Amino acid sequence: MEIAVIQDKVLPMAEVAPAYLDRGIFFGDGVYEVLRSYNGKIFALDEHLERFAASLAKIGIHGVDIEQIRSRLLSAFEQADIANAKIYFHVTRGSAVRNHIAPKELKPNFFLTITELADFTEQKANGIAVCTFPDWRWHRCDIKSLNLLPNVLARLEAGKKGCEEAILVNEAGLITEGAGSAFFAVTGKALQTAPLTSNILPSITRKYAIKAAGQIGMEIIEKCLTVEQAVCADELFIAVTTRDIVGVVRFDDKIIASGKVGRYTRLVMEKFAGYVR
Amino acid sequence: MEIAVIQDKVLPMAEVAPAYLDRGIFFGDGVYEVLRSYNGKIFALDEHLERFAASLAKIGIHGVDIEQIRSRLLSAFEQADIANAKIYFHVTRGSAVRNHIAPKELKPNFFLTITELADFTEQKANGIAVCTFPDWRWHRCDIKSLNLLPNVLARLEAGKKGCEEAILVNEAGLITEGAGSAFFAVTGKALQTAPLTSNILPSITRKYAIKAAGQIGMEIIEKCLTVEQAVCADELFIAVTTRDIVGVVRFDDKIIASGKVGRYTRLVMEKFAGYVR
Repeated sequence: MEIAVIQDKVLPMAEVAPAYLDRGIFFGDGVYEVLRSYNGKIFALDEHLERFAASLAKIGIHGVDIEQIRSRLLSAFEQADIANAKIYFHVTRGSAVRNHIAPKELKPNFFLTITELADFTEQKANGIAVCTFPDWRWHRCDIKSLNLLPNVLARLEAGKKGCEEAILVNEAGLITEGAGSAFFAVTGKALQTAPLTSNILPSITRKYAIKAAGQIGMEIIEKCLTVEQAVCADELFIAVTTRDIVGVVRFDDKIIASGKVGRYTRLVMEKFAGYVR
Repeated sequence: MEIAVIQDKVLPMAEVAPAYLDRGIFFGDGVYEVLRSYNGKIFALDEHLERFAASLAKIGIHGVDIEQIRSRLLSAFEQADIANAKIYFHVTRGSAVRNHIAPKELKPNFFLTITELADFTEQKANGIAVCTFPDWRWHRCDIKSLNLLPNVLARLEAGKKGCEEAILVNEAGLITEGAGSAFFAVTGKALQTAPLTSNILPSITRKYAIKAAGQIGMEIIEKCLTVEQAVCADELFIAVTTRDIVGVVRFDDKIIASGKVGRYTRLVMEKFAGYVR
């Protein structure tokens, strides 16, 4: 008889709940999004849903109704009634006995959570420390997939060093992005970040950071930085949905910008704050 | 109130079952093994448990009792009473509200299945068709992790082309391995396969294939093949736990070895069959 063991409990395969047979867990065969609200207002919902639809298409998960996700999300957000909420959702290819090739007509699984956002006031005021870690991720980081073990390992290592974020460096010695953020350097009045390729997530916060920088008259350079260039920058910051713009004041062992959140970083933060009101 | 939505069902976060909060699904934060039995006898259990322990250590999941896994596996195998069984198991870092950094003292989750092996008699007799696909996997394929989306995408594409396996080719144009197998080429009396690096799974079937080839007097060359070299080989085969040795008779559009399972491939298969009796 075909059987399963869950922790120490033995049961017939036929009685295993679908949650244990999710292709998300067997393969990371799914994609996700993270959004947030500011004072009861969800930021950039359309952009997140658009990117989500693109991720689904890139891994060939079909038949997901994006408008249904929008309405489930909005209804849950209303019910949760959390002013500054973190909204996470994923869709996987579905649940089935493990096999690389999914059965035909498998129904995708949907999962969403709405939780209180942590308070990042102090981080945003004082800036954070980051450290470098090898970019071990797969070659399609343009897809926001559930394959995030390299990101977890990078963050684990960063945590051990007392850092809030890991900045990923590829084999050519170039910075791609943070384990959970886009990465920016300010030199003079120029803002530099990696260009969007298949190795970079098309970050929505990145897009708005670039918009903000443009509006305050900065020159935008989309070109990967070396570690050397990053530590010599006037200012560094990361961009991430849950915290938008956060200054970086330590990079590995190097203090950046006298250890305070830089002037242009603050200007970008202020401009950004205007978008989310 | 913090809430979750599972498919279309809304519930308070506190009521979400741990299976939905598994770090395996959020991040692929876990490692796995696949073993098989031949006529009621499990093959290479010690090697699989050893590799599993190594995978756990590499991603920093501690406190997993390998001897407990062995005894759960053996007891379940006895209960299942399947002569030719596929045994799958994984351990993830545990269940918690989604955050890259896992809470301290999280208890790992264990999951195991024992199912009937599919019948590969025809495949083994006639050989299979394979096609190439870009190796999009992460840079630590020596870790047998749950981050398998690139493998799934490769197999999906192979399936569309009527192929049983995808052979992964890296950016340098070199063959690393199959999406779920090791890859071998026979030229004259030499057997060539990729060397074990961080881009290759230390496959146990690969090890026994090399042992078998050595015992029949073949020279072993551990060096990556180009696609060009592969299509010009006398014979090709893959090695994978569930099927051990399977001849490859078509590689992309090229017929290999007159379209039949080659002589040395059959000799390696026969030798291998001796190990599993």
